[in-house]
Amino acid sequence: MRVEIWSDIACPWCYIGKARFEKGLAGFAHRDRVEVVHRSFELDPGRAKGDTEQVIGMLARKYGRTPEQAREMEGNVAANAQAEGLGYLTEGRDHGNTFDIHRLLHLAKARGLQDELLTLAYRANFAEERSVFDDSVLADIAAEAGLDADEVRAVLADPEAYADEVRADEQEAARLGATAVPFFVFDRRYGISGGQPSEVFAQALEQAWKDHEPAGLVPVGGDAAACDADGACEVPPAGAPERSA
Amino acid sequence: MRVEIWSDIACPWCYIGKARFEKGLAGFAHRDRVEVVHRSFELDPGRAKGDTEQVIGMLARKYGRTPEQAREMEGNVAANAQAEGLGYLTEGRDHGNTFDIHRLLHLAKARGLQDELLTLAYRANFAEERSVFDDSVLADIAAEAGLDADEVRAVLADPEAYADEVRADEQEAARLGATAVPFFVFDRRYGISGGQPSEVFAQALEQAWKDHEPAGLVPVGGDAAACDADGACEVPPAGAPERSA
Repeated sequence: MRVEIWSDIACPWCYIGKARFEKGLAGFAHRDRVEVVHRSFELDPGRAKGDTEQVIGMLARKYGRTPEQAREMEGNVAANAQAEGLGYLTEGRDHGNTFDIHRLLHLAKARGLQDELLTLAYRANFAEERSVFDDSVLADIAAEAGLDADEVRAVLADPEAYADEVRADEQEAARLGATAVPFFVFDRRYGISGGQPSEVFAQALEQAWKDHEPAGLVPVGGDAAACDADGACEVPPAGAPERSA
Repeated sequence: MRVEIWSDIACPWCYIGKARFEKGLAGFAHRDRVEVVHRSFELDPGRAKGDTEQVIGMLARKYGRTPEQAREMEGNVAANAQAEGLGYLTEGRDHGNTFDIHRLLHLAKARGLQDELLTLAYRANFAEERSVFDDSVLADIAAEAGLDADEVRAVLADPEAYADEVRADEQEAARLGATAVPFFVFDRRYGISGGQPSEVFAQALEQAWKDHEPAGLVPVGGDAAACDADGACEVPPAGAPERSA
């Protein structure tokens, strides 16, 4: 069974939702047969690379609040994060363009290290005094996740490396009707929007599992040559290439 | 969209079927959005590691034929392979246990190199005078595919490395009703058994694509805090951790 999770590093509910999903998954009997794929979604794609802003100031501006009110908003999010055992800094965090982080997450996916990198990037952004909008910090995190340093440098230096993969994820999100993240899709049948309680994820896993188990695949095509579990291969009749009956 | 292909290196129809599938895929308009995953299936799991046998002799014994008849059977398979542009040796090929190859294919999957390794392993087994039942040949092929030599050696030396992944694939095949390979599963909805003509794969891709496109996901859970594409995050009310409406 496959769960795809669209998210952005800059999204606190993605950070919290990931922990809640993982709690639901930890209690799921068939967790070993669940594959999790992280997909790209940018909260602020129009922002230029390097144009960063402190989160508190950004929130105050966006919602027309005072810095104190923005701090209170962040305090509420922090309480949700802490309830999941996650560190959360309400001050000193940067907000910015996450395209390069998503490109690196696709490199990490190709190397089997996507969850490792995502976990470290969330921690750096929300729980540590490290700006994930700084290439040298990104390179450090990627190395901690186990990626090859030269490969990471090459991807950061080439703005088109894995760019198509990021855009394809975003187009897929749009096609699936996702307008906000986190957005969880179970076997392309069930969708969950937002940082729901872990019980909702547990329920979705159970439901999707029922559908996933082979009520029966729909067969396509007629008989064709194959090899069975006894090592016997059906052999086509002599003559021109042709499939056997 | 995802296509899973259960196969065994020792299975000529898997080798041929892979080429036919790829021909069907090459003509598919949405091929860039198709993910292909190779899954393990052993034709001869009861055979001990190191117990190899020449294919012609094995076929003659299994089917109660003379070596000449076995050669004719192989000649028919070779004609099918050659029609797909694939090399195929009818003499000198070994048959044996493929568990270790499948374990390496899972390592390769984790490193994003699964198709590379599978392609090279098929070629070595069917088109070249190289026995894929020999660890040193396997190590060479894995290195050619781009895997790290030390990592490959470590996996070959530890019989449990990626063994669970191989068994999980095989259990999944059984659950899906596959008794022979190649077995192709499209988005867990459509199943194709055997080395069908490329047109059948092309048809299945079109059909599965129609289902794949969002007729609409089934939503699970109520409203929950999320961040939208304008960067706005819904904020839960002040106080105890709680999700926003």
